[in-house]
Amino acid sequence: MPVDSWSGLKIDAKFGTTVSKIDHKAKTLFYESPEGSGSYEYDALVFATGARNADPPIKGLDKKRVYGLRTLDDAKALAAEVGKTKNAVIIGGGLVGMEAAEAFHEKGVNVTVVEFLPNILLAMVDPDMASIVEDHCKEHGLKILTNTAAQEITGDETPRTVVVQNRETQEISEIPADIVVVSTGVKPVTDLAASIGAEIGTTRGIKTNELMMTNLKDVYAVGDCSENVGFMTRKPVPGGLGTVAVRQARVAGINAAGGDVKFPGIVGAKVTKLFGLEVASTGFIEHTAKVFEVEIVKGSVKGRTKPHYYAGGKDIKVKTFYEKSTGTLVGGQIVGLEDAAMRINVITLGIQHKITAADLFDMENCYAPAICDTWDPLVTSAEAARRRLKI
Amino acid sequence: MPVDSWSGLKIDAKFGTTVSKIDHKAKTLFYESPEGSGSYEYDALVFATGARNADPPIKGLDKKRVYGLRTLDDAKALAAEVGKTKNAVIIGGGLVGMEAAEAFHEKGVNVTVVEFLPNILLAMVDPDMASIVEDHCKEHGLKILTNTAAQEITGDETPRTVVVQNRETQEISEIPADIVVVSTGVKPVTDLAASIGAEIGTTRGIKTNELMMTNLKDVYAVGDCSENVGFMTRKPVPGGLGTVAVRQARVAGINAAGGDVKFPGIVGAKVTKLFGLEVASTGFIEHTAKVFEVEIVKGSVKGRTKPHYYAGGKDIKVKTFYEKSTGTLVGGQIVGLEDAAMRINVITLGIQHKITAADLFDMENCYAPAICDTWDPLVTSAEAARRRLKI
Repeated sequence: MPVDSWSGLKIDAKFGTTVSKIDHKAKTLFYESPEGSGSYEYDALVFATGARNADPPIKGLDKKRVYGLRTLDDAKALAAEVGKTKNAVIIGGGLVGMEAAEAFHEKGVNVTVVEFLPNILLAMVDPDMASIVEDHCKEHGLKILTNTAAQEITGDETPRTVVVQNRETQEISEIPADIVVVSTGVKPVTDLAASIGAEIGTTRGIKTNELMMTNLKDVYAVGDCSENVGFMTRKPVPGGLGTVAVRQARVAGINAAGGDVKFPGIVGAKVTKLFGLEVASTGFIEHTAKVFEVEIVKGSVKGRTKPHYYAGGKDIKVKTFYEKSTGTLVGGQIVGLEDAAMRINVITLGIQHKITAADLFDMENCYAPAICDTWDPLVTSAEAARRRLKI
Repeated sequence: MPVDSWSGLKIDAKFGTTVSKIDHKAKTLFYESPEGSGSYEYDALVFATGARNADPPIKGLDKKRVYGLRTLDDAKALAAEVGKTKNAVIIGGGLVGMEAAEAFHEKGVNVTVVEFLPNILLAMVDPDMASIVEDHCKEHGLKILTNTAAQEITGDETPRTVVVQNRETQEISEIPADIVVVSTGVKPVTDLAASIGAEIGTTRGIKTNELMMTNLKDVYAVGDCSENVGFMTRKPVPGGLGTVAVRQARVAGINAAGGDVKFPGIVGAKVTKLFGLEVASTGFIEHTAKVFEVEIVKGSVKGRTKPHYYAGGKDIKVKTFYEKSTGTLVGGQIVGLEDAAMRINVITLGIQHKITAADLFDMENCYAPAICDTWDPLVTSAEAARRRLKI
């Protein structure tokens, strides 16, 4: 919604303004702005302070043309540089890094992604799914170095190379780079909230309950600066997703204004599209299931987006996860050249309503040869798991 | 699965074979085949006799080059004719008629669809959605005459024109036609089942219970020849959809072999794609809700498939329906140039698990600018209804 339409909503938005101090006992905050300093009294306070880049231990991060990618200004700066760039190195092959890599590559830049872990996107998908994405991106001309630690950005004022070490072979090499993007994760911005006594959780975000309220009455936190609970585990997980942030913000806003709405917990649905390949994930991946000590049974299928007798179908791989003790759906991943993302929403809704493998198998998916087969790969993945679960 | 791989499954498939008589007391059926006649004893019997075209009261249906479109042979015959065809008239603007119309049009044939009702596809979507589809098909060059009755196919051996009457103005006109496709619905093939005492239901299909068993023990019926119950109403509805047929067949097969599986009832998820426009529907449409006397509250939104700030999004219209007394999701329709079909599966799963508008609004849809917005149109449609339902 454009800012100039906010006035009718009784929203007084102050830009370029920094909150310098909060006196929560007096329910007053103090700010500095280009027009001078001032203060506000409040009934309720919502922290939406976001996160900042968590810089990794790499030498030379302070050079010019070494960027994070977090804000609109970051994006604008990168867009302005791209014409002058021949070689870009992206440190960190997560969602942000991979999307930046594609964007640079599409502008004709040589791009190398340096990922510390054995695969890209491991916060989102399992290694087998990540490998499909890696192969696809490499086929489109991206260089991806996995299991590789970036050690130093060389050069004077601006980068010349990035020194990297293969973690397996210990071999050290240098990658030419005139621009470097560092996308190795974020840390929540919590200083101001902590200063008034808001509790910081184990994931380093501001701890919130199902009202999105902190331990302080009438003080809320939402989005990347906050910590809430995972839907499946009810244990602490960070925010970190746009779709979660807007839902938390709505809940906090309504409650701050005297309403009573609850946030149901974070499932963690994620999606991206890289060189036309859709990659989607929701709920547990194998790694997080292990971390939270949930024993799972898998249903994994390689299928086609359309029936075999109809031209133009694309490969799609679907994995769904079920809690072994109950058969309850707790996660899913999909990689495919079409219609992957929209399928993940089915799994998310299923997780939120605690359906079982038998329930997902009973889903009456729509069918038309030009669209999809009579047994959707989602359904056949549930069938594979159902047989193993013996339900 | 190819037929020659069936033998390992102990399936003896006899083609070109007609069952001439069944003696159900003796559990024996008699058949005629090119190799002669014979008989089989059975423990269980499954009717999958399908449906035949329900010919409308139109003169001249017996001419050559007047086709139904039901079997593979029908399709092959039409494909063989298309090169000799200049003008095709499709009588009946349902799913089959519209898909045939597009196929002819894509081969360079002049196509006119003649639909008796005020809109095409009214067994699938509401008039407002149908209008969007009509406009889209007309923009691509299809002629569509709605509210129009086909009266006669003129010509000698083969068609010359189709005489039609506008039902509002009573005006009669003639449409040139050298081929005519009649797609005005089907009737279940039930004679053989009826001959042994299987009960025929109010929708004219063979009546079945949740085991897909007829009133006769060990006798099952599945697919287009059968009648089961609607998921939302538990009242009789016909089969008539491929996705339903294969699910019913699985249930009948398992039960016939001594298992115990239940068919959950028919939601009625349908989808098609016409000139790139995806049209999907599930559960009640306004008309069927009225027929079954279920008072509904609607959530209707026009959105985009991608966020406004990302290039390449397409218009999408989403309607979701909720039972007024409970807020329970009971139907949905989506029309859009991309990602409509896959969204309908979310609604179907929601219907099958009796979620409410508040639940659908709480769905954590996946989000990435290249894929979809933070609030999916599905979710905003639920929000629109939720406010009206005051839940």
